[in-house]
This record gives sequence, structure tokens and C-alpha cells, in this order.
Amino acid sequence: MAQFEIPKTQKAVYFETNGGPLLYGDIPVPTPKPNEILINIKYSGVCHTDLHAWKGDWPLDTKLPLVGGHEGAGVVVAKGSEVHNFEIGDYAGVKWLNGSCMSCEFCEKSYEANCPKADLSGYTHDGSFQQYATADAVQAAHISQGTDLAEIAPILCAGVTVYKALKTADLAAGEWVAISGACGGLGSLAIQYAKAMGLRVLGIDGGDDKKKLFHELGGEIFIDFTKEKDIIAAVQKATNGGPHGVINVSVSEKAIEQSTEYVRSCGTVVLVGLPAGAVARAQVFGSVVKSVSIKGSYVGNRADTREAIDFFERGLVHSPIKIVGLSELPEVYKLMEQGAILGRYVLDTTK
Amino acid sequence: MAQFEIPKTQKAVYFETNGGPLLYGDIPVPTPKPNEILINIKYSGVCHTDLHAWKGDWPLDTKLPLVGGHEGAGVVVAKGSEVHNFEIGDYAGVKWLNGSCMSCEFCEKSYEANCPKADLSGYTHDGSFQQYATADAVQAAHISQGTDLAEIAPILCAGVTVYKALKTADLAAGEWVAISGACGGLGSLAIQYAKAMGLRVLGIDGGDDKKKLFHELGGEIFIDFTKEKDIIAAVQKATNGGPHGVINVSVSEKAIEQSTEYVRSCGTVVLVGLPAGAVARAQVFGSVVKSVSIKGSYVGNRADTREAIDFFERGLVHSPIKIVGLSELPEVYKLMEQGAILGRYVLDTTK
Amino acid sequence: MAQFEIPKTQKAVYFETNGGPLLYGDIPVPTPKPNEILINIKYSGVCHTDLHAWKGDWPLDTKLPLVGGHEGAGVVVAKGSEVHNFEIGDYAGVKWLNGSCMSCEFCEKSYEANCPKADLSGYTHDGSFQQYATADAVQAAHISQGTDLAEIAPILCAGVTVYKALKTADLAAGEWVAISGACGGLGSLAIQYAKAMGLRVLGIDGGDDKKKLFHELGGEIFIDFTKEKDIIAAVQKATNGGPHGVINVSVSEKAIEQSTEYVRSCGTVVLVGLPAGAVARAQVFGSVVKSVSIKGSYVGNRADTREAIDFFERGLVHSPIKIVGLSELPEVYKLMEQGAILGRYVLDTTK
Amino acid sequence: MAQFEIPKTQKAVYFETNGGPLLYGDIPVPTPKPNEILINIKYSGVCHTDLHAWKGDWPLDTKLPLVGGHEGAGVVVAKGSEVHNFEIGDYAGVKWLNGSCMSCEFCEKSYEANCPKADLSGYTHDGSFQQYATADAVQAAHISQGTDLAEIAPILCAGVTVYKALKTADLAAGEWVAISGACGGLGSLAIQYAKAMGLRVLGIDGGDDKKKLFHELGGEIFIDFTKEKDIIAAVQKATNGGPHGVINVSVSEKAIEQSTEYVRSCGTVVLVGLPAGAVARAQVFGSVVKSVSIKGSYVGNRADTREAIDFFERGLVHSPIKIVGLSELPEVYKLMEQGAILGRYVLDTTK
Repeated sequence: MAQFEIPKTQKAVYFETNGGPLLYGDIPVPTPKPNEILINIKYSGVCHTDLHAWKGDWPLDTKLPLVGGHEGAGVVVAKGSEVHNFEIGDYAGVKWLNGSCMSCEFCEKSYEANCPKADLSGYTHDGSFQQYATADAVQAAHISQGTDLAEIAPILCAGVTVYKALKTADLAAGEWVAISGACGGLGSLAIQYAKAMGLRVLGIDGGDDKKKLFHELGGEIFIDFTKEKDIIAAVQKATNGGPHGVINVSVSEKAIEQSTEYVRSCGTVVLVGLPAGAVARAQVFGSVVKSVSIKGSYVGNRADTREAIDFFERGLVHSPIKIVGLSELPEVYKLMEQGAILGRYVLDTTK
Repeated sequence: MAQFEIPKTQKAVYFETNGGPLLYGDIPVPTPKPNEILINIKYSGVCHTDLHAWKGDWPLDTKLPLVGGHEGAGVVVAKGSEVHNFEIGDYAGVKWLNGSCMSCEFCEKSYEANCPKADLSGYTHDGSFQQYATADAVQAAHISQGTDLAEIAPILCAGVTVYKALKTADLAAGEWVAISGACGGLGSLAIQYAKAMGLRVLGIDGGDDKKKLFHELGGEIFIDFTKEKDIIAAVQKATNGGPHGVINVSVSEKAIEQSTEYVRSCGTVVLVGLPAGAVARAQVFGSVVKSVSIKGSYVGNRADTREAIDFFERGLVHSPIKIVGLSELPEVYKLMEQGAILGRYVLDTTK
Repeated sequence: MAQFEIPKTQKAVYFETNGGPLLYGDIPVPTPKPNEILINIKYSGVCHTDLHAWKGDWPLDTKLPLVGGHEGAGVVVAKGSEVHNFEIGDYAGVKWLNGSCMSCEFCEKSYEANCPKADLSGYTHDGSFQQYATADAVQAAHISQGTDLAEIAPILCAGVTVYKALKTADLAAGEWVAISGACGGLGSLAIQYAKAMGLRVLGIDGGDDKKKLFHELGGEIFIDFTKEKDIIAAVQKATNGGPHGVINVSVSEKAIEQSTEYVRSCGTVVLVGLPAGAVARAQVFGSVVKSVSIKGSYVGNRADTREAIDFFERGLVHSPIKIVGLSELPEVYKLMEQGAILGRYVLDTTK
Repeated sequence: MAQFEIPKTQKAVYFETNGGPLLYGDIPVPTPKPNEILINIKYSGVCHTDLHAWKGDWPLDTKLPLVGGHEGAGVVVAKGSEVHNFEIGDYAGVKWLNGSCMSCEFCEKSYEANCPKADLSGYTHDGSFQQYATADAVQAAHISQGTDLAEIAPILCAGVTVYKALKTADLAAGEWVAISGACGGLGSLAIQYAKAMGLRVLGIDGGDDKKKLFHELGGEIFIDFTKEKDIIAAVQKATNGGPHGVINVSVSEKAIEQSTEYVRSCGTVVLVGLPAGAVARAQVFGSVVKSVSIKGSYVGNRADTREAIDFFERGLVHSPIKIVGLSELPEVYKLMEQGAILGRYVLDTTK
């Protein structure tokens, strides 16, 4: 069995108050509990949720001080006495759901994300913006040896989340799915997962660069909201009556309300983003007469994670990343706030 | 085979303009098309939809002049050449969905209510507020000989609608369903169907009379919104975490929004009423984190109708009706607008 | 609107007794009933079922004399007074299910194939081995203008049947499906539909030609039963624990029993062929402990048909056919009995 | 917190070789692992599986020496360091599935019973025929304080198993379920669960005593196989076309094959018993044309267990038991082999 030398301290980015300074410095390496593994994080994706955690603008409190991050990929270097499903040297991933009680009615039914005692990486549990992170072994993601750890990092949250949203839409191969906000970090993965699931993809986003990317990723019909005056009519015409499902990666309230109107009768609108304070609105009359479903989809469970990783590892989904050093996280947050990011930033924890 | 003498003219209540006078008088008896049956309507329920049809305040146009009504029970007295599933003398019912194209993607999948060419009784097709009404034989309801035609009348729309809403909530026996607006015409049927399906029923309504009725019909927990200050907390406490499903018979926007909050994680909120202009609102954040579904449920299809009637005919559901003459329909509408109706009014077409 | 001259007589292949002479000659052109269309059949596929109908070795009686055939593609040349969903000149297809009662509990739920009064093309209703055939307009298949009528013919039964079987297996994209008898007429279509649905395909068949064809059609793992000694172990190893679903196109009793053993725990074995007298066997102990489902899948309904045609028309499924004249049907039956057919024979009704 | 004094030794019934002597004597009290609780078993049901475990006639090896039993109800007296979901003094139950890996694809999806590393009480893990048994805390059943521990014992396996089988049949309230072997230990619970789920129950069993019991438990139609010559016709007539689902509690091969014939089209036959060596047979032709499903149903998962217990604790299901001392287990096995048991024997571990 592989053996790893584990240092006492490590580099991390952390903050002591919500919205306070993001500190890059040395902190102790944590010790895994009996049920945990210790992962030497090689790369970590950066997600909008990390920005919310830092700002503290969500209705859930974070731990403080906090190391953020929940898309970490690395190598298992130590494990607790009760861990039977990982060996030292295995590749493993830190997910948003670090651990759950495994005993409540939600955990019993594989809805661990809905566990009232859910422990969240980079939120209530120090996350992947450090070189060594702990994760409950039951929830940690298994990654095959030889996988590119930088590219898989965004799959661990963004990929799993859109894959789960597509499953929540409950579509059959050959049906139409619309992706509202098709060409951002989540959307660009959603297009690829949808294609791999046999769906026909319509994307809504703005600009010719987005349109080009959309078609490169396998999308079929692109609606440019900066040019199209009647989005509802255009979507319904292109899909011969409306898409069977809609994935609202965009968190625009207007876009969400429109999606409840252009969706096909008996179709499903999925809410997947987590904007602070936004409201989903739907006309009751139309929703009833058209028998529309509006479903909130949170992060995937362990099976969803395994499946989303499998699509990636089989080469059906590619992850458009840009790698920078862990110490550069504050700059990434700035770009994120400016809405200036295409694809996904991934942090190299050695830099 | 039975033979019936069919008159040339008959009594009916009709109007010539939306909101115009409700006329009680003689009109010609219609002739069934090749695919239709002619039903001698004995009794017809009166539904809020009939009021909307008369007023014309929905975003769908009615035919004019119009005979309203879509809960008619009676006897087949004639049939077209292509009708093979009814015999003269059979008991039959007129439903909201009078007929559909039977060939579109929705009809193919048994979602006939969502057919773009749906023909609606008392709306686009003269309905059951007359002594002789035509109905597409494929859609008309089969009623067993000997059934009480007055009592079954409200089952044909109100009963089927709440039964379908309960199916849409997709609950397992032993789970909790909340009925918001539990003791009106729809709610009082919903309580009984829910019980017959093995569900535990929590009702929300106002007043001690309602509470008494609720428990008589088999309900388990009653929340009086006129007395309870924190509905959300009270519902969640009584159901140990929130009901697995909610049937919004009430069309109050506030009640609908509350239901998206007190529903259990991974649960389903069903919208079933058809208020003109109302909007359903839900916090995106909470809906996603709790993985809540909000589903519009329209009227049932033929299988739903057959099943809802079967529960009634087996004595598991009772229909609390008050019988008045067809000519008294204008007075019933007045009471309805005053919100002064308990249970369901049923019209005797001979009076 | 297009107008067609309809002759009084036409060429057909028919027989007067089960197993009796197959006569190629002139018979009257039928007149459509009010609910029927008259299709000028251009091409018709030949299916094993046609052979059973001729021999009369199934436990259902055929009409006599009988014109067989149930994979006919052509042009609508006349229609009954009650037909609203086809126009003269439309392309249309004759399916196995010519018509059903549309009113029983099975028809109500879109399970028309299970209707006790199902009317079967080439079995209880003269079929597509003639130049002009009648079909119930509600059941007849819609085919887009410009489609190759020879190539689509086998899709109307073989294609729809395997597509329905795959839906019955209830698999998610990314899961494994095994096709037992992968490279015959049904199997070669099944491979392509499975791929289009995002499934991973393992095929079982015999010989290097079959193996080559299997991989050309998109299959991933081929098991040659003429070479592999332990089929069960080989299938389970290749799929890391067994396929999630199995489509038994092969009607070998041994192959069916094996499939109940190599299928993954919680997986589904689908029976789709219709051998006269064969029995499916499964160890009760293993079926229970592994929670295996064995499901009979019959022909698709109207929605399945529309969807299967859509996959074909979008170019995702190709139909490997060999065209001969209608008069050559007896020779095709001989080849079929010898098991000497690769792909599907299609008859040109003009020859 | 409650404190319990735990002895070093205890009474148990065990055997050292399959089929060897059943010894009643003193053995050490086991020590719980970090993930286990130690339960002071008050009562344990006796199941046919215990007989198979003793005889060793199943294709799975038992541990040896072995303490059998997997329906044990008692009080938590100690727990390991990693147990967070039980407190000392809680009521708890030992189930057939003592523990599982919680990390394989089956555990991830809540199909723990299908885990390849499943640890089975009274089979691979010493069971409930002792005064102190260990159980994985994640799998152990939670029982409400005040529950009758003798009556609930058979619910922990027999009750959960039939409840799960009914869920596997996937029936809607108002549909017919047939229970083949309706009045034995499993069947008599199945009748009651079926009623509580809103199903209509037809039972097949033999003798007037059975008939009387069947109706007392809420069954609607009883078919006496000792009197009825044509079971298939009788069942189909009584249910107007066949039951929508069948629970084969009986393990007779003939009864199973019949059930595949009398089941309604599109219906489901559930296999639930575990006879050594028996084979389920079904005509392929009929299964396909009728679109029948045959499903193996194993024991329930944790959610099924919680739900089955909830029905019992709410008084909807009663458990007809006979209590004898633990030392009398050998006599119970003798009666069981003679088929002379009505209801369920429960052992009092203090005697």
C-alpha cells in the first residue's frame, strides 16, 4: 500500500468573517475522524457558491473561520479507522455534500442532499481551497486512477449538478430540452450531458461567441436573447410546441417566468441555480391548463456523482477550464463578480 | 334494446353574451354526430368554471350563445353511427372534456385534457344545463345502472379533478397530504379520496363548522387559518416535518406561496384551481435546497374518470349535494359569488 | 388537395387456409369505413409474425382468406367521413395494430396493443401484402413527406417493437443493455436505438460476420456464443456486474434463462419475441435475492411509433433492407424458415 | 441517560453444523463494534428462513457456529463510538439485513439488500435467538417507545417483506391484488397492508378456517384452491379481468405459473418467497402479448422498514402471534416443517 508523508501545516485560502479579507497562508493540516479520509487536494474548481459562502448572503450560516471550496480533486493520503471504501493512494473528490447523517428519512431514500444535518464543504466544513482536506468517506467521490484531476474538478459540483437537473427533468431520449443560460460554466456542461443522454438541445444565451460555443458543444438550436424579440414564440416554434424540459441555469427571474410559459404542455421546468432572494413566478391558470411541473433540483447524490463522473471519464463530456494558482483566488472572485468568466477557473493548490 | 322518444325542443339555461342575461327557455334538442351520444341529462352539478364561462373572464373564448354546465349525469337516448361503446339506455356522464382529437401527441399518451383541439362542455360545446346534451362517445363517462344520478353529478368534474390532483401529488399510502381549502366543494371530496388512497390528511380552512365537517369526512389534523398565527410552523409540526404533498384547492396566492414553504423536502405542491390572473410564487433558493416540485394538475383523463367513479360507486366517497331546479341556476351563481355555498348545488333538469 | 384514381382490383398475396398455397393474384380493392384511410402500399416489410399467421401456429385464430403483412408504407388515396387526422396524399404506414376499441381500460391508458378487441393487420384484418390496404386512421402511422418508403417499412413493426422493448427495460443513459440475438432483423435495429438513447450496448450472437456488423452499428462489446464457454461470466465481467437490462430478441429458451442469471441485480430482462409454445424460466431464489424483473413487451403504442419513426427520420437509425417483388413472398418465407436472412426483406408491391 | 448492566454470558440457541443439534445454552455476550449497537433482545419471531439457515440448503453459506434469528425486538443497552442515531434505552429491532457496505452502487441507491457485501442476521452474523445481539446502527430498525415488542417482532421481517412486495407490485389505490397463499404468516400480514394501501384484496388459500380469517382481516374475495377447479377463470371473473398485481407468498411452482396466467394484462406478478431450487415458469407468448411483468422482491430497505413499522404502530396492521420460550425453538421448527403453523411464533428470550 502506498504511504504518504503528511506535513503538519499547509497552504490555504480562508477568511475569518463573511466578506472579510481572503487570507492566503499556512494553517494546520486536519486529522481525519474515524469515518473520514484525508485528501491531498491537487486542484479545486471555483463556483458561485463559494462567493456566496464568503459574502454570507445566503439564509444559511457558514462556519467561521472558513476554508471555502467544494470541487476538489486529489489523492487519499490517510483515512480513519472505520473507512472501508477507500485505500491510501486512491483518487478522490471533495463534493458540496461533505457528509450527512445517513439515518434520516432523506438519507434512507438516497436524498442525502436534503438531510437536515448535511455537512457542506466550503460552508460548514473546511473545503478544497487548501492542500489537505477531510471528507466523509461515504460521500467522497471515487475517481479512476489516471484521470486528469484538474479537468475533473468542475465535474464534482457543476457537472453533477447539471446532470442531476437533467435527470430531474425526467426526459426521454429524443425529447427537447431548453437550457436557459446555455453557455456559462454550468450550461456548457449541461449541453454535453444532454447530448450524451440522447436529448435534443435548444440553448438560450446572448452573443455570437456563445452561439459558436453552443454549436461546438453539440447544441441544435440557439436563441440569442439579445436579438430575439419574442423568446416564447421563438422557442415554441423551434421545438414544434415547446421543449419537454427546461434547465434554468440562468437565475434571472424573468427568464424563469418565461420558461414556465414556453415549456411544452405536460413538460417540466427545472430550477437549479441558488440566487439569494429570487422568486419563481408562474401563472396558475396556464400552469394548470398545460399541466406544467416546476421542480427544484439541488446537488446530486452519490449515484448521480458516480454517473456524472462516468460520462466524463468515458470522454463524452469535456470541461473547459483555465488553471491558476490557489493564491489567485481573490482575483477569480473579482472576475466572477464582474460576470467576466467563460468556462470554469480551477486552482492549482501548489501555487 | 331500450327506445326513447326524443322531443324536438327542450328546457335549457343559456346566455347570448358573456355576462349577459341567463335565459331559461326552450331550445332545439341537438342531433348527435356519428361519433356522439345524446344524453338525457337528469342532473347537473354547478362548478365555479361555469361562472367563469358565463362571465368570460378567462383567457379562452367561449362559444356564443352558450349552454353551460359540465357535470351532467343522465341516460343515453340516441347515438351516432360510429358509436360502439354505449348502448341506448346506458347511464352516461358529460364531463368538462367533451371530446378531443384523439390523434395529437397528448391524446396518444392519454393526456387528452392537454389536446390543443380539446372541446369543452359548457364552454366550446353546449353543456349540461339542458335536458338533452351531446357528448363524444369516446370521452363520455360510463356510469353503472342504478347509481344515484344526482349524487354522482359532482363527481364528474369536482371528484375527478381532486382525484387527479391527488394522483399528481404522487404520494404513497401512509404519507401526509395537506388540503388547502379543505372543506369546500372540491376539498370535501379530496379528503375522502385521500383517505381511500391510504393517505393521512391535514386540512387547512377556517371556522369550527369546517373543522367538524373535516373530521366527519375522515381528516386527521385540522389547522384553522383564522386562529393559527404561524401556519407554516403549525403544519410542519403536525406532520413531523411537513406534508409530502399539498393540494391547493384554495386559489389564494398567499396560501399557494405558503404551501411551497411548509411542504416537506422532496415533496410536491399541486395547483388545481383556475383563478383568473393569479400567480404562483416560490422562493427559488428554498425550492432548490428542499427539492420541491410544483405541479399544475388539470382535469382527469378517461382512466382517472373511471377510477374516480369507481371509488364513488363502491361507497368510499360521498357527495354532499343540495338539489334545486335548473331554472334556479341564476340564484346559485349569486350564492357562489358570495362564497356562501357549502358542498355542491345540483340542478334537476325537470324543474 | 391531391386526387388519386383508385382501381377496382389490385395485386395481392393471400391464402385461403392456414399453411395452404400462397396465391399471387387479383383481388378487389377494399373500401375504407368511416374511420379508415385507404393506403396505396408502396413497400411492405416481411416479419416472422407473417410466417406464423400463414402457418396458423399461434394460439390466436387468423381471418381466412387472409392477406398478410403489417409493415406497409405508402400514400393515403382515400379516407372515410370521420377521418380528421390524415389528408389525401399524406404518407402513412400500416402497423401490426390496425385498430382498437379506443374505449376499454387499456385503450384509455394508451395500452392499445393490449385491447381485447385489437384488430391486427395481416392477421384479423387484411394487411400490407396488397397494393391497397385499409387502416384505422387513429392507429395508422404518420410518415413525413419525402421519407424513403422502402427503408421505413421495417421500422413500422421491427423498429417500433425493439424501441418499445428498450423503453420497457427502463434504463438510464450510460447504463448497459445486452441484446441477445444482436445481429438479426430486430437486433440490428435494437443496437442503433440503444445507442441513440445513450445506452452502452453488449451484443450476443454467433460468428465473425455478426461481430463485424455489431461494431459497425455502434455496439461496444460482442460476445460470440459459438466461442464463449461461460456466457454468464463473460457478460458479467464485460459489464462490471451484469447489464442493467437485457433485450431477448432471440427466442431460445436457454438464452432467455441465461439472461435472468447474468442480468445485474435490480435489472430488467425483456421478452420481446413471440415463439409458439416457448417457456421463460427463472430461478425463484436468484430472482428474488437479485430483485430481477422479467417483463413481456409487445408492440408499441402510437406514441412509441411516432418516436421510433422520428429517430429514423432524423437519421439516427438505418434499416438494412433487401427489396424484392411482392410476387416473390413465397421465396422469402422459405429463406426465413431456413434462418438464412440477414437484415430485412422488403416487398415492392408493383412487382 | 439510561444505564444498563450487561452480563458476560447469556442464553442463546445455536448450532455448530448445518442440520446439527440445536443447542440451548450459555454463550458470551458480544461487544458492539464502533458502528454497532448492542440490543437486549426481548422477543424474536421465527421465520422459514431460519429453518433454511439451520439446514444449510440455500446456495449461500452460513457462518458456523451460528445463532439464528432475524426478527428481534428489544432495547439498546450499549453502542459503539461512531453511533449517532440511537441512544441507550431506545427500542430497536434486528432485521435480516444486519449491515451493508453503504458504498456500492446498490447501497448508494438505497437497495442495500442487494449489496454484494450484505451481512445477514441469523445467517452471516449471529442473530436474534440470543438475549444480546449486535446490529449495524445504520440498518437497525427504530421502534417507538411503548410499542409491544412481542407483536412487532414479526413485522421486522415478515411485515416489511410483504409491504415491500406490495410496493414492488406498483399498484394504485382501488386496484386488485391477489395474494397466493393468503392466510399464512406472510399472507395474513399482506392482506392488512394491502387494505391499508387502498387495494382490493383477493386471496387464494385452502379451507374454511382460512376463508374466515381472510375475511376477518379485510379481504374481499376468497378462492379456495381445494374446491375451485379452474383457478385462472375464477380469479379473472372475480376481478373483472384479472388482478393488477399478484403477491406469490406461496412458493408452489404451479401456483406461480398460474399467477402469470390469471394476472391482468399489463399487470405484475411478484415473487417473494425463497424456496430452495424452485423455478418460475411463464409462457413467453402470453407474457409478451399481455405485457406481464414478473418481479423478484427481496426484503425491504430502511425506508420500507420505517414505513411498515409506522403502519403497525398506527394500528392498521395486527400481528397474530403465539409466544413460547426461546428454549422451545426446536419444537417450533418441527411444527414449521409439518406446515402446521397458523400465524407466527415469537420467542420470549427470558424462557
